[in-house]
Amino acid sequence: MNNIDNKRTASRMMRVTTALLCCIPGLGLADQAAAHVKNLPGAAAPSGMKAAAPALEHYTHDLLLGDVWQRPGLSPRDRSIVTLTVLIARDQSTELPFYLRRALDNGVKPSEISEIITHLAFYAGWANATAATNAAATVFAERGIAADQLPAAKVRHLPLDKQSEEKRAAMVEENFGKVAPGVVKYTTDALFRDLWLRPGLAPRDRSIVTVSALVAGGQVAQISFHLNRAMDSGLTEKEAGEMLTQLAFYAGWPNVFSAMAVFKEVFAQRPPAVSAR
Amino acid sequence: MNNIDNKRTASRMMRVTTALLCCIPGLGLADQAAAHVKNLPGAAAPSGMKAAAPALEHYTHDLLLGDVWQRPGLSPRDRSIVTLTVLIARDQSTELPFYLRRALDNGVKPSEISEIITHLAFYAGWANATAATNAAATVFAERGIAADQLPAAKVRHLPLDKQSEEKRAAMVEENFGKVAPGVVKYTTDALFRDLWLRPGLAPRDRSIVTVSALVAGGQVAQISFHLNRAMDSGLTEKEAGEMLTQLAFYAGWPNVFSAMAVFKEVFAQRPPAVSAR
Amino acid sequence: MNNIDNKRTASRMMRVTTALLCCIPGLGLADQAAAHVKNLPGAAAPSGMKAAAPALEHYTHDLLLGDVWQRPGLSPRDRSIVTLTVLIARDQSTELPFYLRRALDNGVKPSEISEIITHLAFYAGWANATAATNAAATVFAERGIAADQLPAAKVRHLPLDKQSEEKRAAMVEENFGKVAPGVVKYTTDALFRDLWLRPGLAPRDRSIVTVSALVAGGQVAQISFHLNRAMDSGLTEKEAGEMLTQLAFYAGWPNVFSAMAVFKEVFAQRPPAVSAR
Repeated sequence: MNNIDNKRTASRMMRVTTALLCCIPGLGLADQAAAHVKNLPGAAAPSGMKAAAPALEHYTHDLLLGDVWQRPGLSPRDRSIVTLTVLIARDQSTELPFYLRRALDNGVKPSEISEIITHLAFYAGWANATAATNAAATVFAERGIAADQLPAAKVRHLPLDKQSEEKRAAMVEENFGKVAPGVVKYTTDALFRDLWLRPGLAPRDRSIVTVSALVAGGQVAQISFHLNRAMDSGLTEKEAGEMLTQLAFYAGWPNVFSAMAVFKEVFAQRPPAVSAR
Repeated sequence: MNNIDNKRTASRMMRVTTALLCCIPGLGLADQAAAHVKNLPGAAAPSGMKAAAPALEHYTHDLLLGDVWQRPGLSPRDRSIVTLTVLIARDQSTELPFYLRRALDNGVKPSEISEIITHLAFYAGWANATAATNAAATVFAERGIAADQLPAAKVRHLPLDKQSEEKRAAMVEENFGKVAPGVVKYTTDALFRDLWLRPGLAPRDRSIVTVSALVAGGQVAQISFHLNRAMDSGLTEKEAGEMLTQLAFYAGWPNVFSAMAVFKEVFAQRPPAVSAR
Repeated sequence: MNNIDNKRTASRMMRVTTALLCCIPGLGLADQAAAHVKNLPGAAAPSGMKAAAPALEHYTHDLLLGDVWQRPGLSPRDRSIVTLTVLIARDQSTELPFYLRRALDNGVKPSEISEIITHLAFYAGWANATAATNAAATVFAERGIAADQLPAAKVRHLPLDKQSEEKRAAMVEENFGKVAPGVVKYTTDALFRDLWLRPGLAPRDRSIVTVSALVAGGQVAQISFHLNRAMDSGLTEKEAGEMLTQLAFYAGWPNVFSAMAVFKEVFAQRPPAVSAR
């Protein structure tokens, strides 16, 4: 094969791969290409969905995008953070490009997306985050977002709440220091004294990501600690309740019904919020 | 690039994509094409499986397809519904085309497949259902099944059992109305007074789908309510037990061992079935 | 289209498919091809990751590959078994080729990989194992590993510990024999008196696979039985603890925190290990 052929093939491979990476499920190939170019807002008329499940198309358009996403109580930006988290935590990368574009349109910053992916390497599994970088790299390239607009590997940390962190570390050390010293060490060194202090994603938003990942993964036992942490960082009861509504659609009803009981308990045990915040 | 080249490339892209969407894991590319054309019944000799795990190939052929699927106690049609549900609930779309064809061959109607996918948007997560529409659209196209043979977005509902539904709604409202009003609202409006009343999938079958999704997702806490509902709609104890056998292979032994304890409890607490039903 | 065109297209499809199957997430297409050819050790500089999450690239290189994998307490070979298990149990096949190569480099035998995949058909779900055979077939082909180097479908079993197996079988029969006779039957016939006795993977290693799958799937309720079995087969407390460290990164922190409490309980209830083993 000569050089020209090689180039042609390379260009074809690139296009095929792009089509596969960027596809919005349910769109025919032509629609996908169009969607890719026009950066389609709203997944208007997914033709695969139309061909296999007209009722689902209707619910997607009228109920999910047309109603749930428009509800007050949780901003479109926060809904995007919840949704991206579910897709990454459940390794559903086919849907990611559409929701990454939507997230950027809703005001989630590229730097925040980059931090959400990194955060989820620890809270959902390394391969989940790795897979998500592919979709994000594609969408960032479309939008002309370069790596120097993203948080660097080494950053200046947010200040540490030393007292509460030392209490947490001591409790985990006492409980599990002899069972899994490595887990205890990295929980302190890599998570609470490094990852959580990276300034590219606000503590409240890291907590939204963490709680959403827990609900999406059915990790009921870990919700209480992180929901309290989220509310300590400013998440309101109303917002937390609306997170559950958003999660019902993206993580499925059963996960939300299991989580809802824990949310109720956490709400009940917290002191009443001081004034309106 | 001229027009002819464009067309050629488009046709190549289409073929590549088709090959990827339709592939039966373990088949080499040539076999996949053959399988696609011949609509291979039984996944006879998957060559990737042969190349990497001869024992798995043997178990697949002799134990799973040759023995488990042939057991009495649960019809091949119902086994197909259970299996499709697991694959969709766990987002394993590579295997879907093979099992969608098998489902159609076993008598699951296209309209029922369409409703299963839509049902699982709510019970397994939106992205799971969306991904499944791609595989279903491909298989429907192969079989010449057009969208007008599928249930429309708006349909005439089955009659509502008003008394029991009002009781359910009141209980959920009391429990969670203040925690997550959105979840409570959609549970009533979108699920129990809409989705569950769509006539394209019988209530018993919706319950098989729901229970299978719960087992496949490790959602032990939600099984009791839905297994009782399934049995109220006519699922027998024997069928429920055989669902567990089918689920053991497709959702893995651990999920089934966790679920089996709940099934046992539900069976014990129900009044004895009146005669044979 | 003439014959030459057909061949060209076939060769293109093959290359595209290979690129997709073998891709290391985060690598650009050119890098992927290079990685494929050079069988890249260490995922040096994944460019997609660099483009979307520079911090994740840093953590991958310095923390995960550079630190966690180098820890004493669990051999690189065993870490590879844990990691492959997580990826298969969570159906993350994109990452598999890289970790399959790493496993072979770390001394996991092809025959063991073949048995791990087969074992996980039962413990993680059939479609998970089926998907994994594709990646394994590709990597085996690269390394010139032929099917006759893999365990045959029928093999001579390891000796059965009759007394303890009969006790187990009787207990399960008593508990669940009437609930799901099929599950009980296959648990005995296909699992404990067949799969577990296949000599291609040592009982200790089968237990590492099983326990890792349970942690990765959040199957907390099943851990106790299988961790005890693992330790009865020679897994030390220290190794089990380090498994948790490895699992934290690949299955996510929440799964490990839920599992860690069970590990602690199992450690506490076992008689002290006799001398150093």
